[in-house]
Amino acid sequence: MRLATLRTPAGTRAVRVDRDGYVDTGAADVGDLLGRDGWARIAAAATGPTYPLDGAEFAPLVPRPSKIICVGLNYRNHILEMGRELPTFPTLFAKYPEALVGAGDPIVLPAESAAVDWEAELAVVIGAPVRRATEEQAAAAIAGFGVLNDVTARDWQYRSAQWLQGKTFEATTPFGPVLVTPDELPGGVRPALTMTASVDGEVVQRADTADLVFSPVDLVRYVSTVLTLRPGDVIATGTPGGVGHARTPPRYLTDGARLVTEIAGIGRLDNRVVR
Amino acid sequence: MRLATLRTPAGTRAVRVDRDGYVDTGAADVGDLLGRDGWARIAAAATGPTYPLDGAEFAPLVPRPSKIICVGLNYRNHILEMGRELPTFPTLFAKYPEALVGAGDPIVLPAESAAVDWEAELAVVIGAPVRRATEEQAAAAIAGFGVLNDVTARDWQYRSAQWLQGKTFEATTPFGPVLVTPDELPGGVRPALTMTASVDGEVVQRADTADLVFSPVDLVRYVSTVLTLRPGDVIATGTPGGVGHARTPPRYLTDGARLVTEIAGIGRLDNRVVR
Repeated sequence: MRLATLRTPAGTRAVRVDRDGYVDTGAADVGDLLGRDGWARIAAAATGPTYPLDGAEFAPLVPRPSKIICVGLNYRNHILEMGRELPTFPTLFAKYPEALVGAGDPIVLPAESAAVDWEAELAVVIGAPVRRATEEQAAAAIAGFGVLNDVTARDWQYRSAQWLQGKTFEATTPFGPVLVTPDELPGGVRPALTMTASVDGEVVQRADTADLVFSPVDLVRYVSTVLTLRPGDVIATGTPGGVGHARTPPRYLTDGARLVTEIAGIGRLDNRVVR
Repeated sequence: MRLATLRTPAGTRAVRVDRDGYVDTGAADVGDLLGRDGWARIAAAATGPTYPLDGAEFAPLVPRPSKIICVGLNYRNHILEMGRELPTFPTLFAKYPEALVGAGDPIVLPAESAAVDWEAELAVVIGAPVRRATEEQAAAAIAGFGVLNDVTARDWQYRSAQWLQGKTFEATTPFGPVLVTPDELPGGVRPALTMTASVDGEVVQRADTADLVFSPVDLVRYVSTVLTLRPGDVIATGTPGGVGHARTPPRYLTDGARLVTEIAGIGRLDNRVVR
């Protein structure tokens, strides 16, 4: 099953993505839907109204997650090629919902940064409350997966030892277009999918999402040791090599650039960068 | 004016703290109250019902802030005595609402940590939406101040370069007991108040909240450059010297310890540590 949050004249709506249209599930957005007991059954049984495929506008997949937890340094090949050792523990940091935009929305370049960079990521969306999860509980708590670009103001990220301020500029982080449940993906709750980012048509990142040091299940278990994960919470699982900051010379997003972030089998974010 | 969130048999209630009782403001909690237009007028005009002072139980001052932003390295004396230079930019990191407990609640020691430490802090509570605030706008957006102890699992804080995972264990961070509006405090929006933390009756931290490198107004301006601050959002302004991790040998919180965090003119958190 595939779910999305659409903008409609009556506000956002959580929809099931069918071959011939978007079927209203009765919930205001995917976060709202996931908070309902038996959300998968509710969404599967929904009968509409149905919105046409053409002209649909995506809101952020979950517009206001109670937590967005991001992971650093999590692609095996990239860590090894940089000559670093694989980490023992995940690196975790936060992003706030104000940063999110929809799959086709503009990414707003903040006037205060001259070094805005891309970070294509597989996003885990939580579908049930979970604390100190076993492996089975962690797998069961994963509602599905989406695409997120953890767009980062590098100059602000490195102003202090803590990255938060470079990670959460308002309206910089596309998240969507859809949530795909694990049963529809090769690898299931450990999806093995090709992820790419491109800037103005040039592919700048390419990786297999199975190359994670800490898998989605590992991450749900680890984070849930610290605190309760709730329906609609998001874990952004980290980005592979190919970011602009690591290039010589560095390359950043500029006004008018087109950033496309795609995970085959999930979908594509296609965002124009605007000052 | 002083405000608090009380637990009552009917759920939490936002109250005005009067000399002879707690006066119900009509809002479910202080976060809900601050989200209403004219909250100060509404709270000042509230007539009850009134709850008795004796036996009142405090919930976290704002139970579910949309953002809790913490500041590191912000007490001038402490930075200078450590031989470090004063920072150019604030160090910012996050904490999630699951970490919060009330002013008299137990602090839950996670079984997974052997190094849980104290960090007494002045907390700024936001009372109006603000983005890219001028100094005047930032001052006007401060609803008031409370007390917060940024209790930290040091072993988890330093598992990776990013501190988040050590900062947000569930039910570890007391926040309250009351919000005091700036007009009632010496220094106003830059309060000059004596802050102390004590463990089992021994004072372990003592500082003047006017010794901040980045004042509450500076912090609201800075954070609002990055994203919109909203009513009920919290900025924890950093801790002075005297934390247990910096002692030789280090000293941590253990089962049964009593942690008291007090800011003269605001109030006191009095929490028992439980495994």
